[in-house]
Amino acid sequence: MRFAREELPTGTPVVGVVGGGQLARMMQQAAIALGVQLRVLAEDELVSAAQVIADAPVGDYRHAEAVRRFAAGCDVVTFDHEHVPTGLLHTLEADGVAVRPGPDALVHAQDKSVMRARLDEIGAPSPAHALAATPADVIAFAEKAGFPVVLKTTRGGYDGKGVWFAKGPDDIAIDQAFATGVPILAEEKVDFVRELSALVARSPHGQAVAYPVVESVQDDGICVEVTAPAPGLSTAAATRAQQIALTIAGELGVTGVLAVEMFETRDGRLLVNELAMRPHNTGHWTIDGAVTSQFENHLRAVLDLPLGAPTARASYTVMENVLGGDVADMHKGLLHVMARDPELKVHLYGKPVRPGRKVGHVTAYGEELEQVRERARHAAAYLTGTIDE
Amino acid sequence: MRFAREELPTGTPVVGVVGGGQLARMMQQAAIALGVQLRVLAEDELVSAAQVIADAPVGDYRHAEAVRRFAAGCDVVTFDHEHVPTGLLHTLEADGVAVRPGPDALVHAQDKSVMRARLDEIGAPSPAHALAATPADVIAFAEKAGFPVVLKTTRGGYDGKGVWFAKGPDDIAIDQAFATGVPILAEEKVDFVRELSALVARSPHGQAVAYPVVESVQDDGICVEVTAPAPGLSTAAATRAQQIALTIAGELGVTGVLAVEMFETRDGRLLVNELAMRPHNTGHWTIDGAVTSQFENHLRAVLDLPLGAPTARASYTVMENVLGGDVADMHKGLLHVMARDPELKVHLYGKPVRPGRKVGHVTAYGEELEQVRERARHAAAYLTGTIDE
Repeated sequence: MRFAREELPTGTPVVGVVGGGQLARMMQQAAIALGVQLRVLAEDELVSAAQVIADAPVGDYRHAEAVRRFAAGCDVVTFDHEHVPTGLLHTLEADGVAVRPGPDALVHAQDKSVMRARLDEIGAPSPAHALAATPADVIAFAEKAGFPVVLKTTRGGYDGKGVWFAKGPDDIAIDQAFATGVPILAEEKVDFVRELSALVARSPHGQAVAYPVVESVQDDGICVEVTAPAPGLSTAAATRAQQIALTIAGELGVTGVLAVEMFETRDGRLLVNELAMRPHNTGHWTIDGAVTSQFENHLRAVLDLPLGAPTARASYTVMENVLGGDVADMHKGLLHVMARDPELKVHLYGKPVRPGRKVGHVTAYGEELEQVRERARHAAAYLTGTIDE
Repeated sequence: MRFAREELPTGTPVVGVVGGGQLARMMQQAAIALGVQLRVLAEDELVSAAQVIADAPVGDYRHAEAVRRFAAGCDVVTFDHEHVPTGLLHTLEADGVAVRPGPDALVHAQDKSVMRARLDEIGAPSPAHALAATPADVIAFAEKAGFPVVLKTTRGGYDGKGVWFAKGPDDIAIDQAFATGVPILAEEKVDFVRELSALVARSPHGQAVAYPVVESVQDDGICVEVTAPAPGLSTAAATRAQQIALTIAGELGVTGVLAVEMFETRDGRLLVNELAMRPHNTGHWTIDGAVTSQFENHLRAVLDLPLGAPTARASYTVMENVLGGDVADMHKGLLHVMARDPELKVHLYGKPVRPGRKVGHVTAYGEELEQVRERARHAAAYLTGTIDE
């Protein structure tokens, strides 16, 4: 640890974050305000969060000794991603480390098969699904649920990776999925109107807050746009979505932020698609759009401090991801987008541009949804070089 | 430099900040969003900003070689405080370093005598004043302006230090002031109703924005409370205050944030009291209360990026400083203040508590001034141990 605890002001909490991506980077903004000392286990010295966190030792999150050394002296260990092996987290807990969310909760965000089984138990609505050991299992499932079928690796998928769509029994996608060698979850392809996300934060104490339910737009499995609140969503449906998320957080014993991504079906049902137990892309709007950002509430939750108000500060907030395009210099476009829109909020992650990579996001807020959305879309498109003016 | 420029993503600006106090610390929150790499010249490894900035070499801001070494490789050098010797800054400029604000502007915030002479030249309203070389000069000044007289060291004063009040010709305060051995500025003691602060940001390009004018309350020379906007201030008076600040920024060639502290007199005049050329205590409310914080606009200004909107986001925002008291652990009180007020924004500076030291601030905002003020005052008092519940 770069700073020994006894050198820091009395009572300063030390929070260890495994993983040095943009989530850990944005957590630092909240940590600075709260007087929380962040320590990040970084993939290398130059990752997004390591550029902005003083204490950023490099280490492999899969290696027990590296993680145990990192965790020693932290008051709490939390995560930028969900890839730390469950067994290793149990080892940390046995060492006396406060791991939040704990491994028994986190496994539901790591293993989609475990997640589906548990959601069924607690009565949370899911698409029809079955664990498939062989292609024959997929075909048997499709005989009841019908094609197309969604195939997902139970572990390790993210941003559209580890997902296939099988249109029929002979679709090559089935072979591709099983070629991974890991168990496959087969799910009905939901005929959805749109995707929603219900974000909650929960503390070990059991206090929980629910953010306004948002609409998210995905492109090729990657979140590109979030609108808060989800336009036209009835109060009843929004409350139902929040209740589903709060129930899952409580039943699974989540500490910190939980994002529940859902499908809104044509017939008005809400079906849980994915869980994430950390600040989430569908919650980035809260930095500029809510009284308490998801990053601040994540830190408050894992430290068992009272949670902050999740209330929105404007009628509409729209967040657009900035995905890597042809332009390597993300700073050049700032002259234009900042001059065009003095109320725009820009967030760059310090990540070298690669095509399709999340390198930043922009947020606009205001009273008129169409205007707010146009401002955010324009800025994101300009920064990525998709448009010229 | 911990990060060589060529290792950082293309176009990443590197901003050097001289001084590692809470202003540099809070600048880091804005830098993280903008993808700006901060480098801080820290007084020691444990100062406020060094805890949260990855690149924080320790060095003495009075030593030319230390500062030149620090500045090499920075795109811009700016400041957490105004104590760097003017001559040293000229040396940096001769080296080709972009110093913002530049020494020719900054000297007006460093030397009160230079400041008063220049404000007279540009017609900005000041209290009656005279430079005094001897106690006899003070008495001669008082024969015109009348006692009591305010005596200020021309350089080096801050937070009420370097200021004396002489009630009559035999007041020991006069001897105390001249015992410092530096030139003394004598000023009329203004019969003011309250103190105001007009904060502006200006870029090298000449673009400028003015924040809403605030009321500040000082206790023993230390800012303790800021209300935005200043309650009951007429639009005409607010505009006049903003115009004074914009004129000073333009005439003095300020780049970055300029805070102009003013007295509002009983007969409705506005008289300039002090200038600060950096983010200022009277602008901390902007972090939570304005569309663009003073820290973000300071960075945008020194990088010559278009400035962000200075608009307030709520009808009233009140900031209270948290001054060190009997309680050493500033985190203990968070349980109470966060539970009592989920909308409260807490900012702790990572500084060990010493009596009267600025160790943090709290901000509340909302529609009803009295409620907002009560929330902020309660939280500050509780955190410092002044009240129990």
